[in-house]
Order: sequence, then structure tokens, then C-alpha cells
Amino acid sequence: MSRTVRAAAERAAPSGEAATVAEAFAVALPVGRWSSDPAVVDGHRLDRSGWVPVGRPLGVAFARDVADVQAVLRVAETQQVTVTVRGAGTGLAGGAAAGAGTVVLDVSGLNRIRELSVDDALAVVEPGVITADLDAAARAAGLSYPPDPASAAISTIGGNIATNAGGLRCAKYGVTRESVLGLDVVLPSGEVIHTGRRTVKGVAGYDLTGLFVGSEGTLGVIVGATVRLRPLPRATVTLAAFFDTLPAAVDAVTALAAAGVVPAVAELLDARTVAAVNALTGGGDPAASEAVFLLVQTDGFGADAEADVAQAVLAEQARLVRRSSDAATAQALLEARRAALPALERLGRVLIEDIAVPRSRLAEAARRVTEIGAAAGVDIYTLAHVADGNLHPIIVVDPAEPEIPPRAWAAAEQIFALALELGGTVTGEHGVGVLKRRWLAAELDPATHDLQRRLRSTLDPAGTLTPGRAL
Amino acid sequence: MSRTVRAAAERAAPSGEAATVAEAFAVALPVGRWSSDPAVVDGHRLDRSGWVPVGRPLGVAFARDVADVQAVLRVAETQQVTVTVRGAGTGLAGGAAAGAGTVVLDVSGLNRIRELSVDDALAVVEPGVITADLDAAARAAGLSYPPDPASAAISTIGGNIATNAGGLRCAKYGVTRESVLGLDVVLPSGEVIHTGRRTVKGVAGYDLTGLFVGSEGTLGVIVGATVRLRPLPRATVTLAAFFDTLPAAVDAVTALAAAGVVPAVAELLDARTVAAVNALTGGGDPAASEAVFLLVQTDGFGADAEADVAQAVLAEQARLVRRSSDAATAQALLEARRAALPALERLGRVLIEDIAVPRSRLAEAARRVTEIGAAAGVDIYTLAHVADGNLHPIIVVDPAEPEIPPRAWAAAEQIFALALELGGTVTGEHGVGVLKRRWLAAELDPATHDLQRRLRSTLDPAGTLTPGRAL
Repeated sequence: MSRTVRAAAERAAPSGEAATVAEAFAVALPVGRWSSDPAVVDGHRLDRSGWVPVGRPLGVAFARDVADVQAVLRVAETQQVTVTVRGAGTGLAGGAAAGAGTVVLDVSGLNRIRELSVDDALAVVEPGVITADLDAAARAAGLSYPPDPASAAISTIGGNIATNAGGLRCAKYGVTRESVLGLDVVLPSGEVIHTGRRTVKGVAGYDLTGLFVGSEGTLGVIVGATVRLRPLPRATVTLAAFFDTLPAAVDAVTALAAAGVVPAVAELLDARTVAAVNALTGGGDPAASEAVFLLVQTDGFGADAEADVAQAVLAEQARLVRRSSDAATAQALLEARRAALPALERLGRVLIEDIAVPRSRLAEAARRVTEIGAAAGVDIYTLAHVADGNLHPIIVVDPAEPEIPPRAWAAAEQIFALALELGGTVTGEHGVGVLKRRWLAAELDPATHDLQRRLRSTLDPAGTLTPGRAL
Repeated sequence: MSRTVRAAAERAAPSGEAATVAEAFAVALPVGRWSSDPAVVDGHRLDRSGWVPVGRPLGVAFARDVADVQAVLRVAETQQVTVTVRGAGTGLAGGAAAGAGTVVLDVSGLNRIRELSVDDALAVVEPGVITADLDAAARAAGLSYPPDPASAAISTIGGNIATNAGGLRCAKYGVTRESVLGLDVVLPSGEVIHTGRRTVKGVAGYDLTGLFVGSEGTLGVIVGATVRLRPLPRATVTLAAFFDTLPAAVDAVTALAAAGVVPAVAELLDARTVAAVNALTGGGDPAASEAVFLLVQTDGFGADAEADVAQAVLAEQARLVRRSSDAATAQALLEARRAALPALERLGRVLIEDIAVPRSRLAEAARRVTEIGAAAGVDIYTLAHVADGNLHPIIVVDPAEPEIPPRAWAAAEQIFALALELGGTVTGEHGVGVLKRRWLAAELDPATHDLQRRLRSTLDPAGTLTPGRAL
């Protein structure tokens, strides 16, 4: 153990007991892979949810290989402390936010693409690989990794798997689960298991891969993933449609489905979000001022034919539809969509909600979210992965307010209740984390909730992993 | 309890204890939903694997609703007998084959399509619905249910879910798992839980849906399913390609993938299987005699453009490629593929294997299966869902042999070993059942196998459900 690390451990641990615990981790890990320096810990204990747990974690383990992860879990068991697993810390539900008494296990240093097989159309990656980097590597080989959360440029594949991340291409290519063939997982006991396989099909044993995907770091620590790659689409056509009203845009998406169109991307931004993006980027189509924006992409061998149908359908409701087969234009439009969150963050503090409803209830959901905002006196902006029925109402709070006011929390609660009333879910793709735990019990029936708890106890009997999250 | 049922129960139960057990089930169920008549029991205790367990089950419960399933599981718990769940009995791995001491729970009577929503693109079905009937109902509404096991006309959706059935359209549309949004499940305790949701996205809680899909009746009894429907493809193009050798055909499929083609169907039949099919149907393309047959379909808006590319790629290796956009021709070719198993069953008793290997190892797998057959002196015919790497070597045994000879079993064992050696699985889509249990331990590492057992114990602590199967 280096002197620097030892010194840091001592500085962070005033009490004898905490010092002993920190020392146990420091000794169990290679030099430089443990810190209890308060500044370091503070830089690795929050995510992007805005949730700040009380107190400071005991320290941060910077895992670089599987043995480090095993060592951390074994020491945690011996020392009877809990472990909060962390990738890039881009989560939006508080899953990686850590407080007093826990140890942060940062796996972002496990960041190699171990294999990329064109013949088998798969990659074997470590959890800390940035999702966009994996896709870029696949594209360089003539393939693609379709799951594309809006955070792809900053989030890790491990975090994406832990939350079963969605994103922009799910209607056609599925969520993260559909691209994960197998996992290497360190169980809380320190044992390593291997789930799934290198084949697309396989039914030997229960689907443990699916159980770990979306388990938010509560069942085991993902240290490797075999992910499916897909052929690069032959062509992509982008349609930018502008509508006078949100219901008109939602109706147009329903009409697309009825016409048999399966868009690769279908992103909706309400008019005020469009204005915020334009204010940030200085861009914007002058013909589209105060319009609701719908970005649709078709791809594959039939991209043009599918876009023909889509364009005709959209034109029935839209004020304007622009079409492009040009990659730069498409990229610029997608960048505008990705700029939505930064644009709103300039306006104030944001509470990002993430409900999903059956497609037939989407128009009602969008309308009632607006009503909830008006009644509560809070600003709500709406983005949607609209073909999935996945709505992100974003509550923006005046930065002058000292903290997020009760009326904003109350509006969020009403949005959750609305999702359940419409037969949907309180979280489409961000995870339960800590912020939606109370609502999970409302979404699941008691017997199902109980079974979830029993599964967690089976995998993690001592309750070591990411306590107080997901369930 | 009707006199007939009571009489049957008495006839089947010579010992006082068995009579008491049968009586308990008969009393707990509505009239006509229990039988221990040996003739009835014998008609409901085997599947299509050819495996015959020792002894006769205590009786058969013919469930018509969820309450019947609950009643059976509660009586089983009280009486300490096991329950073997059964749909249409078309399984190929012995999962539904039942012997002495168990009770058969037949859920084929739960056979209603409860809902078919065009707007939400989903159906809510009971487990006994025949898979092809669900697809037909979806098609009548302008949608489709893509999972298409070769048995679709005779197997149930519940059985498909229990084995995570694959079939002909997986390369593009995924296996059954990808089409199941949620499940209603009766746990061994008799409690009903609801997993998943009506939305495509949703990450509230662990993926219990995925855990039950493919669990082969060992974790709970599926009594309802919410399944995803997809738009009917705009167009379908069928290519029938004939090759001189199996490696040439496999190479052509690899070349399709490299060209970015994602076939909706890619079915391979070796030359001797083609000959058997032609002998059965009296058909066959004279230009294709003694050829390996590859059936490729493209579909969607780009069906024609994708078929153009596919046809050019196939033509590089094939003796002949025929193309059709005509639905009747496509249907006839698919029927020829579906006739393969009946055609082979005319030749003798069949052992149907079901390995999957990484795509890059498929040519080697096919070649070595042929070598295994030659060395063992057994006839092996090969079909493949070739784009998935899923190979069905079918061992055909002379019907004059009194039973399946040791050399046939030995060849099967060598095929399993081959699958694992090539990084594949001993079962791509049929399930472990009873026939592959020994090989499951070889495929899974001990820690993973142990976790599977612990999960099973968590869900079914008394070991009531389908004992001796799947694990």
C-alpha cells in the first residue's frame, strides 16, 4: 500500500472502527486502487439524479480487474459493510448515489473491449466501456451496437446493463436486454458466475442474464458482457416533422404504427423544449417556430420506401415535414434532440421523470402531464421516445429556489400516479434507484413484490450490494 | 364429484394412499376436471421426445381456469405429491413426460384469446392457445405474432413460453422471450403473481418475466401472457437456393450476414433430408436433385432490395437460386421445410437434437455431425435454423430395432460434446427437459448451476413442480 493511499485512508477515518474498515480494503487491493480521501470520495458518490444521501461513504475502490471486485466484496462481507456499485455515475434515479457507512465500488476502470467478432456478430466487453465507444468500434468493423440511451457518449455499458437502458432506437432494435447475450458476474460472496452464451439462441437453464440486466447493482457486480452486434443499416432516412399541437404529433405516431412503419427512431419534443434547444444551439428551423417537433428515422434496405409511407402519414397532421438522406443533417437533428437535457439544465434545476404507458394512452398521458404542471404551478417540459410510449416529463425548477420545492415533488408524484392509472410504469428506462422505491410497491402487486425481495435475498443474503435501491 | 370421475379415481388407485390422494384432487376440482382413469392418464402423460418415464401418474387435472390451477397446486402441497405441467404435449425434451407418483396438470383447456389490441399492438392470451391460432388472429387484425416454432400449428403459447421456443423467424424477430411483455403465474403456493406490463419498456423491479420464460414448468404455472404483436410485413420475398455441399450453403449464409442481410427466415436442409421430404410429398425441384436446400425469406419495406442483395450473394455459391414474391410459392416451400420431421419419422424412430453454436463454427459443426454419424454407424439428417447457428441433427433409427440402440445414444452424446467444444449450447430452443439434464451440468459452471438450483428452491421450496426436469 502506497503512503499516499494510507494517508488518505487515515484522514477520512476519524473513528477507530472506520479506520480499521478502510485499512482492510486498502490492504486487500493493489496500490492506488483505494481511497478514503474526502475529496476523492466526494467526487465518486453522486449520480445525475440530484439526490444527495446523508453522510460520506467510507471510501472508494477503483477496480481494474475482476480480482479487485472479488476482493472488495469479500472484505465487505467480513467487515459487514455495504457496497454501492458505480460506473460513470450518469444514472438518473439515485442508484449509484452513496452515503455514510457504505463503500463505493467504481468499475469504470474495467474498460477494455476484449473481443469484437465480426463472424459471430458480437463483442465481449468490460463494464466500464463507454457505450458510444462500443458502437464506434462496431461501426469500424461494419457492424453496430444499437442500444442508444441519450447518455451514450458518457454512460457505460455496465451501467446501461444495470438499468436495462433504453434510448432512441428501442422501437425497432429493443432495449439493452435484447442486445446482451451473456454476462460475467461477481456474486456478493465473491464467486464469479457466467450466464448466457455466445449464441443468439440457447435455453439451457434459467435466464440469469435477464435477471441481472436491470437489477441495478443489487444482485451481483457485472464484470463482463457478451453483447450482440447488428449489421450497419444499409441506409437511413430522417424526417423532421413539425406539429401545431402535442396531440396531433402523438396521433401521427399512432398512424405510423397503423401503416406498418417501424421507425428506428421516433423522438418527440414539445414546443417549449424545442424553444429551449434553439436558445441553446442558436439553431432551429424558422418555419417551425412554436411547433412540436417529431424526429423520425427509418433505416435498412427499405429505408426509402418506409420513409415514403411515413412522410405521407406525417404530412396529414404536420405543419411541415422535411426529409433528408444526408448523414450530416440526420446527425444535426439527433444532436438537437440530445441537446434537450443540457438546454433545460440551463433554465434551472431539473427533475427528470420517466414513465411509460401503453401506446394507446400516450396522448392522454401527454395532455394530463401538461395539466398537472399547470395545476401545480411548475414548469414541465416533455420529451418522449414516442413509439415506445416512454415519456420524459422534465420538471424545471427556478435556480433561485434554495431547494426543489414541495410543489415540484407533488407534481412528480402525480405523474407517477398517472402512469399507473393508465396501465403503465413509473420507470420506462432509468430504473427505480432510490427515488421511485415507494412507487414500486404501488406498481407491483404484493405477491410479486415479495417474490422480488426473496430473489434478492437468495442472491445477496447479507444485503451487501447497493442497499436501499431498486426494491 | 361425478360418479364417472369417482369410479375412475378408484380404478387407478389400488392402494389406499393413492386413492386418498386422487380423491383429494377430485374433490378440489369442479366435476369433470379430474381423471385417474388409466386410459385417460396414458393419453396425457407423454410428449414427443419419445421418453417414457416409469410408472403411471396418479391422475390428470384438466384445468379450465386459474382457480383450478391454484386448487391443484394447493392440494399437491397438502398431499405432498408433485405436479407435472402440460400443454399440448409437443415438447421434444421430456419436460412434460410424467411417471409414477406425480399428477399431470393439463392447462390446454385455458385456451382463450382474452384480448387483442391493435392500438397497443399486443394480445392477452391463456396458455392453451395454439400458437398458429394466435398468429392467425393477429393477422386478421393486420398484425402478426412472429415466433414460429416448426410446431406452431400444434403447440401452445404456454408451452412455447415454458421452453422459450425458437423457430423459423428468430434471426430477425427474436425468440419467444422477445415477444412476451408480461405473465400471470400461479406459484407453487397457489398465489398468483403478475410480471411485466403492457408497455414495451419498463424497468420497475427484476425481470421476472424473463425468469419464467424458458423455466420449463419448474418455477410456476403460466396461466396468462401478454404478448407483443408486430406489424404485418409489407412484402415477403422467398429465395430457394440449392447447393452441392453443406459447407457451401453454410458459407453462403455467412456471406449473407457480411452483406448486411437479416433474413426473416433462413432454413437449411441437407441433401438426404431433402430426398426424404420429396419422397413424402412427391414434390421437389428436378433441377435440385441431391442438393442441399437453403430457404431464405426477406420481408418488410425493403424485402425486394434485400432479396436482390441476398440473391446475388447466394448465386456465388449455389447451383441454382429460384426467387418468388408469390405467397403460395412461399407457403409451399415453408410447408416442405415443415414436412422434414414427418418425412424422417416415416423412415424410423427419430432422436431430434438441438444444438446451437456461434455462427462462425457452424460449418465445422455440420461437418463433424456428419463424421459422428459415419463413425457411429447411425443415420443423421441435418436441419438448421442456420442464421441462428441452431442445428437439428436428427438421428433416425431403423424401426426394426426393438429399441433405440446404444450407438445412437452414443452419437447423441458426441453431438452434445461437440456443441460445448465449439462454444455452443446443448439446447438452442427445445429445452433441457429430462434428456439433457446430465449435459446441463457440463454446460454451466458449478457456481452458475448452483445459483440456478437456489433460484428454483426459492420459487418452489417443496419441489412440487415438474420435478427432475430442467436442472
